[in-house]
Amino acid sequence: MNQPLYSEKQFFTFAHPAKKQKKMRLESGAELEKVTIAWESWGKLNEKRNNTVLVLHACTGDSHAAGVYKNGGKEGWWDFLIGPGKAIDTEKYFVLCSNILGSCMGSTGPASINPATGIPYALDFPMMTVGDMVEAQKKLLEHLGIDTIHAVVGGSVGGMQVLEWCARYPEKINAAIPIATTMRHSALAIAFNEIARQAIMTDPHWNKGEYYQGKPPATGLSVARMVGHVTYLSDEAMRRKFGRRLQNKESFSFGFDADFQVESYLRHQGSKFVERFDANSLLYITKAADYFNVAERLTANSPLIDAGAAKKIRYLVVSYSSDWLYPTYQARELVHTLKRSGQDVSFVEIASDCGHDAFLIPEPTLPQLLGGFLAGGDNGEA
Amino acid sequence: MNQPLYSEKQFFTFAHPAKKQKKMRLESGAELEKVTIAWESWGKLNEKRNNTVLVLHACTGDSHAAGVYKNGGKEGWWDFLIGPGKAIDTEKYFVLCSNILGSCMGSTGPASINPATGIPYALDFPMMTVGDMVEAQKKLLEHLGIDTIHAVVGGSVGGMQVLEWCARYPEKINAAIPIATTMRHSALAIAFNEIARQAIMTDPHWNKGEYYQGKPPATGLSVARMVGHVTYLSDEAMRRKFGRRLQNKESFSFGFDADFQVESYLRHQGSKFVERFDANSLLYITKAADYFNVAERLTANSPLIDAGAAKKIRYLVVSYSSDWLYPTYQARELVHTLKRSGQDVSFVEIASDCGHDAFLIPEPTLPQLLGGFLAGGDNGEA
Repeated sequence: MNQPLYSEKQFFTFAHPAKKQKKMRLESGAELEKVTIAWESWGKLNEKRNNTVLVLHACTGDSHAAGVYKNGGKEGWWDFLIGPGKAIDTEKYFVLCSNILGSCMGSTGPASINPATGIPYALDFPMMTVGDMVEAQKKLLEHLGIDTIHAVVGGSVGGMQVLEWCARYPEKINAAIPIATTMRHSALAIAFNEIARQAIMTDPHWNKGEYYQGKPPATGLSVARMVGHVTYLSDEAMRRKFGRRLQNKESFSFGFDADFQVESYLRHQGSKFVERFDANSLLYITKAADYFNVAERLTANSPLIDAGAAKKIRYLVVSYSSDWLYPTYQARELVHTLKRSGQDVSFVEIASDCGHDAFLIPEPTLPQLLGGFLAGGDNGEA
Repeated sequence: MNQPLYSEKQFFTFAHPAKKQKKMRLESGAELEKVTIAWESWGKLNEKRNNTVLVLHACTGDSHAAGVYKNGGKEGWWDFLIGPGKAIDTEKYFVLCSNILGSCMGSTGPASINPATGIPYALDFPMMTVGDMVEAQKKLLEHLGIDTIHAVVGGSVGGMQVLEWCARYPEKINAAIPIATTMRHSALAIAFNEIARQAIMTDPHWNKGEYYQGKPPATGLSVARMVGHVTYLSDEAMRRKFGRRLQNKESFSFGFDADFQVESYLRHQGSKFVERFDANSLLYITKAADYFNVAERLTANSPLIDAGAAKKIRYLVVSYSSDWLYPTYQARELVHTLKRSGQDVSFVEIASDCGHDAFLIPEPTLPQLLGGFLAGGDNGEA
């Protein structure tokens, strides 16, 4: 590759009152108008319009999954997976990634202007679910004229969206790759999310979500990110990365400065996050992840099972051995559930000491698996 | 037992300037005067004064390990282990437990009055270490005329004190039972402690520790406790205890109320803790636990090893299979280190799904092990 893979953030708006489009009805029953979804794409849609790989991002991710913007900046978060000749080959596939509903990276969320008031929604933003994220993505696909999806792929909360897509629209999907994810949060996962939310909501600057005219709840959001960050790592990864190494090699401070490197690393992660993410968005997205529960819909009267007789989805379920947020036993439960419903399921537990975040780390196993799995299908053109 | 085991909190003060006692010199080099240690005891000291079982409490524990106060209240935190005819048999042993230096449960800590200023120390309290906790306990033992200890026993940070005692005063100790503990904190354990500290220190009410005249940093301390509480549990324990059960059985709130039982449980644990514990004490004790590192002293030129040729300590090392804060591999490292230094070591990993906190849960295995181990020794009278 002589020239970089370029990317451009685009915006699609639906449920637009000025265009007399009807409001988006959410799972909670609430309605949203003027919903904008930020998206990026790589590669070209083929003539049959059936070579789309839909990439779904995790909790605090964005649409910038691959390539670089023409005006510079960082490569996308899955750039090691997506591009010409890479595992998700942009010479074969039309690769699409959009920012989830409720986020703050270009799509409509609590920081967006409420058309009814002219000021940011804050907590007037209706609670959205993983299902609502998928419905917004479906609107974007319809807008792009895409009815058949070659593959849906994503890790963590992105993996939840993969499963939600399969439960809702199995007839549209050829292959699905849920990575480092779960059919539903354990009490442990809910507990960590709740701690993160409490850290934000007890910061006085949070002000019941009404901070857009003042200072954001930076300290609460920073602590929330520290909690998240630790759950994304593993005991082994932290031991390797930090051990008990001291920040100041001389001695202990015998005070409350950061003595250990892991302390200053976490403080840095916390304060960096505050610059790029909205606290209310984190509240909404973590709650959506806690609500998510596809297990019942995969096991009883699901469209997936009803459709199963007529059409199977090829699944590649991937877990990581050191992921203690969504441990391998939860991936196995997913595999058993899918198999019981007659789906075509492959399962790989990747040996890794990098914890939950392993799916974001450029490392050869995941590209090899994905490349092989995508190429192995006999569906569609690709 | 027809009558309950009664307990009484007593106080011992040393380094008293009015009594012309010299100040307590801490590991950091700082000095403390007028140090009070709260303690309780059960059973009687024998004539040879060699039947003491020294019980060492965990991070936020206190001296009330067993029995009930005459004016009522809860049974001690290890009441299922300590008492007449129990594993730590108060008919055979003089059982002693004191509140650690730096705590707020009767012993001197950051909330105590600084004799130099007449107001609480707050952050003027010098940083103390696990070694300093042990030195304060030694002062108490000297005061009680005890030179030989039949056994030192404790879990978690109490287990650290067990190891510190063995590294410092092996010649005084017959048997040692470190439970659910480690020779030193991993990066993961430091990370969780640092998150707890950050939650406190970023609460505006913390006010650099100077909150004793105003409101305490209740929200920060509550979040800190929530973090601690989750690390004391296990995935399995939380699944069994809460699963995804809802607080309101009807439906989701689609808001930020506690939807899941685990959320309201954690909020409750957090706010309950605020009533009984001082935020600054938590800062100091967690930092002492992070600093703790007995590994080097057990492996090279340690008094334990020097004394090893002359006298061995009988060790019973206990870990719990689902403890992810101090996992079994860390207990095994301790066992190997002790064996290499020629000590007499037994090791048991108790199968449990209760996580780190398992050592506090009335359950028959630990009493059986401790009872057998203590009775099995041929040291002293007991």
